[in-house]
Parts: sequence; C-alpha cells; structure tokens
Amino acid sequence: MDFSEIDTPFTVIDYERLVSNLERHLLRTQQQGIASRPHAKTHKIPEMAKLQLEYGARGITLATIGEAEVFVEAGIDDIFLAYPLWLTPRKAARLQALAPRARVGMGVDSVAGIQQAAKTLGTTTIEFMIEVDSGHHRSGIDPHQVVPLAQALADHDLALRGVFTYPGHSYQPDTKDDASQDEVTALTIATSALESAGFEVLERSGGSTPSLHSTQSFLTETRAGVYALGDAQQLELGGMDMDDVALSVVTTVVSARGQTVVVDAGSKIMGADKASWASGHGRVLGHSDARIVAMSEHHATVVFSDSEPAPRCGDIIQVIPNHVCNAVNLVDSVLVKRARKPAQVWPVAARGKNS
Amino acid sequence: MDFSEIDTPFTVIDYERLVSNLERHLLRTQQQGIASRPHAKTHKIPEMAKLQLEYGARGITLATIGEAEVFVEAGIDDIFLAYPLWLTPRKAARLQALAPRARVGMGVDSVAGIQQAAKTLGTTTIEFMIEVDSGHHRSGIDPHQVVPLAQALADHDLALRGVFTYPGHSYQPDTKDDASQDEVTALTIATSALESAGFEVLERSGGSTPSLHSTQSFLTETRAGVYALGDAQQLELGGMDMDDVALSVVTTVVSARGQTVVVDAGSKIMGADKASWASGHGRVLGHSDARIVAMSEHHATVVFSDSEPAPRCGDIIQVIPNHVCNAVNLVDSVLVKRARKPAQVWPVAARGKNS
Repeated sequence: MDFSEIDTPFTVIDYERLVSNLERHLLRTQQQGIASRPHAKTHKIPEMAKLQLEYGARGITLATIGEAEVFVEAGIDDIFLAYPLWLTPRKAARLQALAPRARVGMGVDSVAGIQQAAKTLGTTTIEFMIEVDSGHHRSGIDPHQVVPLAQALADHDLALRGVFTYPGHSYQPDTKDDASQDEVTALTIATSALESAGFEVLERSGGSTPSLHSTQSFLTETRAGVYALGDAQQLELGGMDMDDVALSVVTTVVSARGQTVVVDAGSKIMGADKASWASGHGRVLGHSDARIVAMSEHHATVVFSDSEPAPRCGDIIQVIPNHVCNAVNLVDSVLVKRARKPAQVWPVAARGKNS
Repeated sequence: MDFSEIDTPFTVIDYERLVSNLERHLLRTQQQGIASRPHAKTHKIPEMAKLQLEYGARGITLATIGEAEVFVEAGIDDIFLAYPLWLTPRKAARLQALAPRARVGMGVDSVAGIQQAAKTLGTTTIEFMIEVDSGHHRSGIDPHQVVPLAQALADHDLALRGVFTYPGHSYQPDTKDDASQDEVTALTIATSALESAGFEVLERSGGSTPSLHSTQSFLTETRAGVYALGDAQQLELGGMDMDDVALSVVTTVVSARGQTVVVDAGSKIMGADKASWASGHGRVLGHSDARIVAMSEHHATVVFSDSEPAPRCGDIIQVIPNHVCNAVNLVDSVLVKRARKPAQVWPVAARGKNS
C-alpha cells in the first residue's frame, strides 16, 4: 500500500506478520501442553483479541477494570485481571457489573486486599488468583506465604482459582531461562503449600514473551502478550527477528545531515521506554544496523551505518518502538496493512483505560 | 477535595500552584525583557493556553499541525510550530487552512524543506523561522550556514521572521548555564550572518525551562513550557521546588511490604521517561526522600525512607511524573483542583495529535 496517503507519523500493523506470530504461538503452546491467555494490554484492540481467540487463546489477560469493560463490551467473555486490584466500593460495583457477561478472575497478593474485596463485592462469581513473586519483586507474595491468603478467601466464601506469577526479570539479556526456572520454582512452592493445606489449585499461570521458548509444562497457561506484535526489546533480547515485528511507526525524514537523520516520530508516538541494556530508542524496520540514538517528543535521531545510503528529507521510513505496549497506548487507532486486501483501521478501544 | 470520589489512577493539576508558576514566569520574563511564547505541547490543553495568554504570553508554540488545528479551533490566534515540518500537499493544505484565523509561523532547517514548502504552499502568509543548532544536535542547521536558507526563502517569496534554537542540552545536571550561553552564541552567529547578508531578523527565539533563570535578553522570546506545571526532572535539575510542582497522578497503594509499596500508576499514565541522571521513575508529592525504584505499565514500586511510616494498602498518594509533557499526553482529561472552588475538568484536547 501507499503510505503517502496518510500524514505521518502513524502506527501500522502488518497483518500477515501478526497472523504468522499467532500461528507460531499456537504451535508452541500446543507442543508445550499449556493454554494461552494473552495479555491484551499489549494491543488494547478488541479485533486483535478476537483474532487471538481464533488462534487458540482460551481468554485474555488485562490489568484494569476499564480495559475489561471495553473488552467485555466487545464480546470477550473470559477475562483475568492479573493485578492485585484494590476494590473501592465503586470499583467493586464496576467489576461485578461484568460478571453476568463474562468469566472474570482477578489477582490478590495480600489478606488486606482480600478483606477489602470481600467487603465491597459481597456475594460474587469472581474468581481469585493468588499472585506470587518469582523474582521480579514487584507485586506478588512470597510463595511460601500463600496459605493465609487462601484461608482468607475461604473465610469470605471467595473462590480460589489458582496461583500466578510474572517473571518480569526475564527482560534482561541472558536471564530468560533462569527466569523461566524461577517461575516454575515459585509456582511449585505455592502449589505444594496450598495443596498440603487442603486447597485445590486449578490454575498455574505465568509467562512472558522473552521466556516463552523455555516455558515449562508445569504451568497450565501463559499470559505472554508481546509475542503477537514484537518490538525492539524482543529483537534485542533475541526471541524475535526483524521479520517477525508486526508493528511499526511510519515516519518522514524532516532533517538530514550525512548518515544522521531526524524523523517526525518521537516519544509521543513511540513511547519513552529505554531499558538500560537497549541499544537505542528503537530500531528501523529493514535496516538492522541503523540506531535511534536520541529521542524527544516529536524527533527521533537515527544514525545509518556507512554501508548503506541514508534516507533524505521527505523520505518515509518505518521505525520500531522499544516497547510495543506503551506505543500502542499512544494512538487512537492503528492502520492494518494486508496483502492483496484493503487496509483496515482498528480502534485502540482500551487506550488510556488506566482505572 | 476528596480524591476518593474518583477511581485511581488519575491526573490532577493544582490550580493555585499553576497560577503561581505563571505569575513567577511573567515577572521573570518582564525583568529579562523578553516575551513568552510557551510550548503548549507540555499540556495540550486550550484552557491552560488561555491562562498563559492572560499571564502575559504573546502566543503559543506547538510541534504539529494537528496540535495547531486544536488550538486555533479553541481561539488561539498566534501560533509558532517550532519544528522543521516537511509539507506534503495534504499537510500544506491543512496548514494554509489555519492562516485566515491565526498568525502562523513554522520552522525550517534545510533548503530542501523550504523548496518543499514553496512548492506545496504557493502564496502564503505563513512566516518562517530558521532553526539553528546550539549544541543539542537534534534538528537545526549550523548557525554559520543560515544565509542560503534565508536566500531560498526570499527566492520563493516566503517571509523570514527570524531564527530559533532549542538548548535541549540544558537537560543535564549543571549544564543549564552553559546551554544558555551556547544558545546566545548560536543565535548571535546566525543573526550576524543574516544581517551581514542584508536580511532582517525580527525574532530570536530560544529557551527551555532548565535554562530560564539564565536566559539572556539577546533573545526576543522564550518558548519554555514545562515551567507552568513542573515535573520530577525539573525538581532534580534544581530549577523548581516540590511546592512548585502543579501536576501529579493520584494513585492507590495496591501492594505493600515494609517500606516498599506498589501503587496503581505505571508508565501508561506517568510516561516511561527516565533520563540517565534521574534518581528514579518519578517522585512522590510531599515525600522528598521517597523514590520510585521501578515502574511497569500499571505498577510503580515506591521505597519510603525509614524516617517516615510507609503508606498501607488502600492509601492514596500523589506521584510526580519525570516528564510532564509525555504524562499529560496519556490522558483524555485532567482534574483541576482549586482552593475554595469546585474542581474542574480540562480536556487534553490536543492529546495524540502527532501529525
């Protein structure tokens, strides 16, 4: 398609690459013998969630009630909020309002959070997953300390579905296999503790895109999300190739000096994520040696290697955000480019639904 | 006001602090003898731009045509796009459509950009400012090389208004005074070169919030924008105090372990900016010793010092983004809290207008 029909910068998804990523994920999880419940905070797009369900996902994962409201409204009927929500009366009412239309699960990592949920939800069909810390040290309780939480749920007649963890420490070069092992260890400790205390653990949920290839069948489901679109972080962590990256930002060169050019996409469409190990502020599609050496809100400074001619003012190039989840959250819609079919526009319907 | 009336996280502006910042800025620029044309990409809120005009601003600065469309529609009639726009026919038509309702200026930093503008704009009242590089090394031409650009403008009957630069290298600890000096040097070189070649330079525009206190009267106007709201970067660069910060994100503690707590505001409402010299991913309003040591999309991990009790699950705290411009761009509206008056809601009308 001809990108000159739209004013740059804009965000585009390559449909064929997306589908190829979904197919590969389905095959991998089938081989591993685990279910997939992709984290839809990566895309916030109901059309894309439905495509994930077509490609074998059992439901989706989200982080906020606002996101859940959007996806349930769009017809998704199995949602897990992988977050230790603090349920004020208003938030509890919003969550309860979803329950007649969807199977809804939520995370807890404290007795206080459970007591609060019990107080504000009353009788409910919402199911609870206890979050354990497998080494990322964010939310999640020590896996040895899960029993009082299961007991608190039982005391309040709230349903325990299982345990979950997020091995976020897989987002470092060369740590993904260790993180995957940590994940199994944490979930094993928590499961054993709960089963020894007489609680049934139906679900053991984990997963992140970097650790996907080494995810172990002790898990019952993976919540990885980035695998579907890819980004510069996944490229640099080694789990995806440039040809797998399905989302990019189409941008125009506005200033050029030798091998250094400035394009009109900055942190307001790419996001400002830059991990300490990242080689730059993003990458350039089809130009493996180019690096985004600086970024401000509406400028990205790209250095091309001497082995290829740099683009000139007015030329169009496609840049890859470091972190796709935050990049998608910056736009109201994405253009979906398809081979031999007209392009589509998918609204990012859950963009900005932070609460 | 009672923050418990709204679901967290949400973004709030303290009106009295905002007005106090505008008053101080007016006084400072009056003393310096320079005009103010604040960069409204900081807030993207027409109500706030109008307040800046009440407090002495001569017009506003923006980065994109999409932003200009929003602010002109809201009645702002003097706009400078401090950006080397590459005018496709469609972008040129959009820009021209604004000209009957506003004085419009735009940046150029190449002969190619000027030729493109001449080709697509035709006869126009749009005025041009030549961007020079004062050391930030982003866009902007070497100040010694401005004459061919002025000549190209003249050859195409396009109006030269003056020269501008952005001393973005002021965003480092202890470089702001040097950056301010570099700015004057670059604008002086460019002005002299142009005047020697017979061109009139009506405007010399510069400025950034870190270098505001040392901005020199050789400038005719400053485009600083962050001064109005403040953020953690300004706190840490030393130009603003905690009591000056007018924007924060109201958030709930969802997980707590000793002096470490997790709140429900992450990079999807705070932005992911973290300069190499920043002490963390943001700060905590009213708690100078607390640090945000980690941030993901919906989690911020905050460590409180041992000298004060840490908040508990369910408590509300206010966190300060590192970079306010990107934080505001993540929300559809902000709550404006006023002393002894009802709170207001200001739409972030130019949010996401990247093109």
